[in-house]
Amino acid sequence: MALPEKTPWRPGYSLTIHKIYQYALYMWSDLEIVSRTTKGLERYTFSDAARRIESLANALRALGVSGLDRVATMDWNTHWHYETYFAAPMMGAVLHPLNVRLAPNEIAYIMNHAEDKVLIVHSDFLKLAEAILPHAPSVEHVVIVDAESHPDRIAGRRLHNYEDLIKEHGGRFEWPELDENRPAAMGYTSGTTGLPKGVYHSHRMIVVHALSGALALATRGRRRVTGDDTLLHIVPMFHVLAWGLPYMATLTGMKQVFPGRLDPKVLLDLIVGEKVTVTAGVPTILYMLLSHPESGKYDLSGLLFVNGGQALPKGLADAARKRGIEVIVGYGMTETAPILTLANVPQKYMDRSEELSLTTGWPVPLVELMVADPETLEPVPKDGKTMGEIVVRTPWVTPEYYKDPEKTEKAWRGGWFHTGDIAVWTPEGYIQIVDRDKDIIKSGGEWISSLRLESLISQHPGVAQVAVIGARHPKWGERPVAIIVPKPGWQDKLTTEEVREWLAKNFVEKGEIPKWWLPDKIVLVDDLPKTSVGKINKRSLREKFANILEQEPQQ
Amino acid sequence: MALPEKTPWRPGYSLTIHKIYQYALYMWSDLEIVSRTTKGLERYTFSDAARRIESLANALRALGVSGLDRVATMDWNTHWHYETYFAAPMMGAVLHPLNVRLAPNEIAYIMNHAEDKVLIVHSDFLKLAEAILPHAPSVEHVVIVDAESHPDRIAGRRLHNYEDLIKEHGGRFEWPELDENRPAAMGYTSGTTGLPKGVYHSHRMIVVHALSGALALATRGRRRVTGDDTLLHIVPMFHVLAWGLPYMATLTGMKQVFPGRLDPKVLLDLIVGEKVTVTAGVPTILYMLLSHPESGKYDLSGLLFVNGGQALPKGLADAARKRGIEVIVGYGMTETAPILTLANVPQKYMDRSEELSLTTGWPVPLVELMVADPETLEPVPKDGKTMGEIVVRTPWVTPEYYKDPEKTEKAWRGGWFHTGDIAVWTPEGYIQIVDRDKDIIKSGGEWISSLRLESLISQHPGVAQVAVIGARHPKWGERPVAIIVPKPGWQDKLTTEEVREWLAKNFVEKGEIPKWWLPDKIVLVDDLPKTSVGKINKRSLREKFANILEQEPQQ
Repeated sequence: MALPEKTPWRPGYSLTIHKIYQYALYMWSDLEIVSRTTKGLERYTFSDAARRIESLANALRALGVSGLDRVATMDWNTHWHYETYFAAPMMGAVLHPLNVRLAPNEIAYIMNHAEDKVLIVHSDFLKLAEAILPHAPSVEHVVIVDAESHPDRIAGRRLHNYEDLIKEHGGRFEWPELDENRPAAMGYTSGTTGLPKGVYHSHRMIVVHALSGALALATRGRRRVTGDDTLLHIVPMFHVLAWGLPYMATLTGMKQVFPGRLDPKVLLDLIVGEKVTVTAGVPTILYMLLSHPESGKYDLSGLLFVNGGQALPKGLADAARKRGIEVIVGYGMTETAPILTLANVPQKYMDRSEELSLTTGWPVPLVELMVADPETLEPVPKDGKTMGEIVVRTPWVTPEYYKDPEKTEKAWRGGWFHTGDIAVWTPEGYIQIVDRDKDIIKSGGEWISSLRLESLISQHPGVAQVAVIGARHPKWGERPVAIIVPKPGWQDKLTTEEVREWLAKNFVEKGEIPKWWLPDKIVLVDDLPKTSVGKINKRSLREKFANILEQEPQQ
Repeated sequence: MALPEKTPWRPGYSLTIHKIYQYALYMWSDLEIVSRTTKGLERYTFSDAARRIESLANALRALGVSGLDRVATMDWNTHWHYETYFAAPMMGAVLHPLNVRLAPNEIAYIMNHAEDKVLIVHSDFLKLAEAILPHAPSVEHVVIVDAESHPDRIAGRRLHNYEDLIKEHGGRFEWPELDENRPAAMGYTSGTTGLPKGVYHSHRMIVVHALSGALALATRGRRRVTGDDTLLHIVPMFHVLAWGLPYMATLTGMKQVFPGRLDPKVLLDLIVGEKVTVTAGVPTILYMLLSHPESGKYDLSGLLFVNGGQALPKGLADAARKRGIEVIVGYGMTETAPILTLANVPQKYMDRSEELSLTTGWPVPLVELMVADPETLEPVPKDGKTMGEIVVRTPWVTPEYYKDPEKTEKAWRGGWFHTGDIAVWTPEGYIQIVDRDKDIIKSGGEWISSLRLESLISQHPGVAQVAVIGARHPKWGERPVAIIVPKPGWQDKLTTEEVREWLAKNFVEKGEIPKWWLPDKIVLVDDLPKTSVGKINKRSLREKFANILEQEPQQ
């Protein structure tokens, strides 16, 4: 009877989503959950949700869901979506939220690639589903939410009513004891280049990610996030499991508010009406909240906004702070479930909190992270200057791109997951992304960070939004061009010369950027194209403006 | 290429202690660690510690430590102990802290049972080691800490100097990638009855326990514990990994203070001198801090004391609160690594925080817990009255009693781990231990909680300490007897009649306990016997006073 190399396994060891569910049911059965539907604001408790989650699992079983069948969703941020987040993986199936902002043919591609069996669809997306279903033969059943009446069938499949299913299939569901390494959820990268890539995460990944994220939010930064908070779900639930926030909030007992369709006025009403204290999203959402015509009527002070998906321009952060909103940046990607870093500042740097909370931040617990030469995997110096690729090892990175061993091997080369993000790291330990590897501007053999330029230009008083791209240049290869949405009244005053002079005076003269970083040209537009997840679509901008310097050379 | 039933494994997934180590090294390399040695207060940073941890691993390897070899320790709470907490398990060996308060023959039994290979010993315990080593043949090397000079050999074995080893074996240690289910640490239950029982915990258990405990401390209760805190290590590091606190503190970046030998005056000096904000221990320690003759000179306000190992008497809690100390109760056992519950009160019951933080508390995240009939495993009603046994399932309960399949099977019967603690649970979700199953007093077929009586009697103005036991009774089987240490000046005033009348007036008349719970007799003593871990030794009291009612029947 020697000590075993591996401890024997006992009931209760598995880190499955059921662990979060049972814990919440024990601790916060009366946790308030608010959901905005066509009927208005609906309220229930977590124990109500749990009964419905059991019924949903019963219903899905009755519809034939078994094994690792995929349960796809086309839904806003609703309590139905929340219920599916638990029922599908806890019964052993795989949750697959579909990004409804993609083109129909992209969605069809994804559904076929994932082989979705059941589709749960919000009535707002019924038409979209009808257009796609003929091209998604794997789907056997469709379930509709938030609909009083609807047809019996859709594209040759039964169309079930979610609420009827819940009523018909009441009663307990015997949750199976699952292997914690069983896939629990799938997602696809938004794919600004090429076809969407599928990733999946196991129960264990989701649970450990929730523990780590919740711990980072509760222990760092000026504003700690705990069960005392009320969370408004703005990050779309079809986007990387809403950054894991539904699981974190359930684990720590936060009141949760589901706004349904994302409408700035509705969000403002909910923030004030439900006493929301924390939310998260891309910068575009923050911009919408601040620039809504009635925004000034709402008291947003005390709100914490966790920015992700894209760097937070300093100008936007300043505007938010003027309204009493605390902002911090988070960083991650679909592949990483998603959180890797948060810029909630550790105690020892708290006196620089305002500045540092806009950086890419510090790893959350258990994340191993390097900024390294992508080929040799040698870490670059922690000098805040030398650029390298962010590579990570953490218990929640996807193990592979689904059905794509070639991309998997490339991403995991050298035993580290390659994020494709170019960053510097600092003596203080935070990292700062300077660009996506494909967005960095290569001018005469030197690198120019498009993100850094965007951040500086966004501080110009006449600039509402800005994107910087590398345009082709006969002499330098690429040169920066700034695409700018001007603020009202600045249409005529914003010229290339004005912006270059302003940048020179404010940043070049102070040594913050070299002179050769100044953009060769600015272009004024009414709006910037966005990707399906609300990021600025630089690929589309590059396609449109790639030749602009060749047409009219500047220097 | 179907979705796999189990996700493939990638580098960085394993939840090993190395994950905590590398994270701390990244995040808080300059974390301050203070250690009191014979030289006075020594200070260093976590990155200093890390270099020494690497050297220690090199040295242990050179001494022949390999595989699952056990590295035993006989040490106070010192930085040497802390270094061993990381070096031994991270190199793949098994950390085995020995309880130096046990009798030498018990320690010898444990060392033989565990088959310890190396012993790291504090100079204070060199004599103890010398007495035991002839009976512990598995030990091949002995390493001494905190000694300027010492013999070359001890009981036929080489006696190495820790600091010399560190100097000789400098340089990097290549930490192996370990299976997270590999045993990392062993411990033995203090064994108030029968022989000590061995348990072990894997890397994964220790890491998930640290995540959960840190999250519970940071998100519940009036006083949140985070990296902003300074932790004084009072819980002996030879007792259930110091409740996991060294790992939690390292994970969240708390300044840590190691006091060496536990001396109340030293602890008071450290609390004030090092601005300690949180500590943990058994009630006896709290009593010692408050009753030290010079205690009044120290400002203890703002300190959080996490009480464990034994219920916190209300009288003692009140005395602590008068000094501005916040107290909360925690509960666990050697088998459970140890934390199961904490009485840091969730937000919704915060208005009853003073009362509820003295209960046994609420489960920490991921703990599945029931108060149930120990035979049928049917949960008892959550009515705050019906007693049952606490049974648990959690990712960090020991899988077995080492080399004891019979006890293992008994403890794990029905797929739940049986704690042997009798409790009630409440509509609010907290539990309240009413007794150990062996301490409960069975009077005429009904149960009387000795703990409850102790808690009430402790509030009597003349009572310094109290233990209640069941003494044999010719008519009722057992009846309660209170063993009391009186406060100065009360020696003559405390009689059985006085205590019975005071209890009747304050608790029986108010319906808090039935009249038949009143103790049949009180016995005044100068001191209560303690177990090796500082708990009141009821077994010894029972042996002494079991017949006291038969000798002089009372009713």
